[in-house]
Amino acid sequence: MARIVTPAVATDIIIRLQEWPERIVLVQRRNPPRGLALPGGFVDVGECVEQAAVREALEETGLQVQLQALLGVYSDPSRDPRGHTISVVFVADGRGELGTGDDAAGVRLVDPGDSALDLVFDHALILADYRRFVRTGYLPRPRR
Amino acid sequence: MARIVTPAVATDIIIRLQEWPERIVLVQRRNPPRGLALPGGFVDVGECVEQAAVREALEETGLQVQLQALLGVYSDPSRDPRGHTISVVFVADGRGELGTGDDAAGVRLVDPGDSALDLVFDHALILADYRRFVRTGYLPRPRR
Repeated sequence: MARIVTPAVATDIIIRLQEWPERIVLVQRRNPPRGLALPGGFVDVGECVEQAAVREALEETGLQVQLQALLGVYSDPSRDPRGHTISVVFVADGRGELGTGDDAAGVRLVDPGDSALDLVFDHALILADYRRFVRTGYLPRPRR
Repeated sequence: MARIVTPAVATDIIIRLQEWPERIVLVQRRNPPRGLALPGGFVDVGECVEQAAVREALEETGLQVQLQALLGVYSDPSRDPRGHTISVVFVADGRGELGTGDDAAGVRLVDPGDSALDLVFDHALILADYRRFVRTGYLPRPRR
């Protein structure tokens, strides 16, 4: 087909470890925008988003993840200052030893309700949706 | 940022009408692949997926839709023979008069469980997930 121009597609993963079920993994970004972010990255052509999520989680945190739920799709055109990127966000359980991948300056296990986290992109919104999901069992409704 | 190459992003909408809650709207495609498909189309750069879904539903069916749930994200690289396209699929309620848009050769109100439907792309899989959601209330789990 003619080259279709759409937003880019990425995936981000909210990873919980069995030993710390109330905490999640964040990465300290090495590249701008600097700050804390969910592990994630772009989806490659030829790979499904679930594969991309498992691959990015492993690359960025050293963890093997099992995807448990699709939290939502975040697509506000201004959510990424580098260009319009849609993120498919999964909730996952992680196993293995937490480590720092190539694209990260560090990894942290944090309380997702900690208001002092220096989060980039729209990851504060995503974590607010995640906390509501944990508390109520309800996934976010489509935004108007 | 450097031009990132990812799959294209589209949205498809499962539209129910208040008068026919057990049926959904399909469009007869004018362009290849020929067959029946959910109303939908590509997401534009600068528009969020929810806006794209409301716009495409209106363009293809004449209906104003209210998005009720995110059914899933379908991203198998072989799902669209024209190239790797990820679809964000919503369940929506439609209002207005059902009509045929520019890209469609016709619209139909069908029973989503009708096994004789000549569905294109992976829309038979999407409708199987939708029927399970209607029956059980459970959204599809992330695929392995």
